Amino acid sequence: MNEVIRTMMAHRSIREFQDRPVTDETVRDIVAAAQCASTSNFVQAYTIISVTDKEKRRALAELAGNQTWVETCPLFLVFCADLHRLDMTCTKRGREIVRGYTEQFIVATVDTALIAQNTMLAAESMGLGGVYIGGIRNDPQTVCDLLHIPDRVYPVFGMCLGYPDDSPEVKPRLPLGVVLKEDEYTGDDEELIGTYDDVTSDYYKRRTSNKRDDSWSQQVSELVSRVSRPHMRAFLQRKGFEMK
Amino acid sequence: MNEVIRTMMAHRSIREFQDRPVTDETVRDIVAAAQCASTSNFVQAYTIISVTDKEKRRALAELAGNQTWVETCPLFLVFCADLHRLDMTCTKRGREIVRGYTEQFIVATVDTALIAQNTMLAAESMGLGGVYIGGIRNDPQTVCDLLHIPDRVYPVFGMCLGYPDDSPEVKPRLPLGVVLKEDEYTGDDEELIGTYDDVTSDYYKRRTSNKRDDSWSQQVSELVSRVSRPHMRAFLQRKGFEMK
Repeated sequence: MNEVIRTMMAHRSIREFQDRPVTDETVRDIVAAAQCASTSNFVQAYTIISVTDKEKRRALAELAGNQTWVETCPLFLVFCADLHRLDMTCTKRGREIVRGYTEQFIVATVDTALIAQNTMLAAESMGLGGVYIGGIRNDPQTVCDLLHIPDRVYPVFGMCLGYPDDSPEVKPRLPLGVVLKEDEYTGDDEELIGTYDDVTSDYYKRRTSNKRDDSWSQQVSELVSRVSRPHMRAFLQRKGFEMK
Repeated sequence: MNEVIRTMMAHRSIREFQDRPVTDETVRDIVAAAQCASTSNFVQAYTIISVTDKEKRRALAELAGNQTWVETCPLFLVFCADLHRLDMTCTKRGREIVRGYTEQFIVATVDTALIAQNTMLAAESMGLGGVYIGGIRNDPQTVCDLLHIPDRVYPVFGMCLGYPDDSPEVKPRLPLGVVLKEDEYTGDDEELIGTYDDVTSDYYKRRTSNKRDDSWSQQVSELVSRVSRPHMRAFLQRKGFEMK
């Protein structure tokens, strides 16, 4: 097993951090490596905002659902899907960007996720740990107000990073046969998912902290049967992502 | 520089491959490592379809804009954002999944991109190379027909993988100061982007193959001033992604 595979397989979300800063040099090294991720037609449709201001951190932690680690982590990054830079670049070249298509939303969102995953892994390879914060989409307009995020840019998620002060167990993933198919989508994996429910149930019972009686099917079925962030469409439309 | 950072920084798109198969064991190792990527609330909202059937490959290569490497690469993966599995899981638990929200579309799309970037990097760490194929969104309905992709699942992009038979130069990315901001979005990077245009222009003139007279600003401004894949919204709506 090589170092890249080993780093990936050691991933778990870290929410408690040592009182040790992440230097600017480390941040730059991480992001410079992360930038090498693929990008759709080279557009690089993302901007990362590192939030150092304490008041902004506190506000972000609260709107993300009182996730205290957003306030306390040494490094908090907000990953934004960004069509504004391309818009300005067009204008300077005497052209006009096409606006509002769903395809552009997909391109910018995927580009942002690719650089983010490289960021997480680069950080982990340097001894850091972290967690994605989808919770900033609870109130994306306030995130934009706090960070002066303009139209045609939206905050996709945040990321807490720092040197771990916790070592939770790695969470077992769905059996490979459930997520990897050959030549066609086949969906009836009842047996494999049943086995996986036993595995996750066992994991939740045994893990060191936050033990509970749960399984994957139980957990996700409760989650996805509740409406989550119904404001996203209207928010995105106001920001110039019309999804036409 | 550690091995993870080194692997990231060596990334370039590979479209020519040695006549050497990627074994099933290698594919399984790659995807098992990739699965360890973060996933929103543990939903794991993705399915990867490996396309081995020659006729399907040919059809995909053609609809992706005659990208012959889609047909000829040893391994071709289609990454799908998948809410169907969650839907079935809900039904089995006597619940009903909430449907059609933009938020769910974002969750599934981001989850898919995160596992994909791990897949690319895991493959690269094992000596393979590859390229993302956004071109399958040229005709996503035909992709669904070919691979029997059901409602509430959509193909986000493909990925060609194999042992490289080509070694293109690494493409320079935007200056760090353009993509990494502190505490607020600031957009006027005219000078940095000007410098970057010189760098990319130089890169395009000097690179070994496919030399051209171009720069980043020129390239992307031409690209984004043309409508791309205007069918995506209607396609997604038909597939149960209503974007409400």
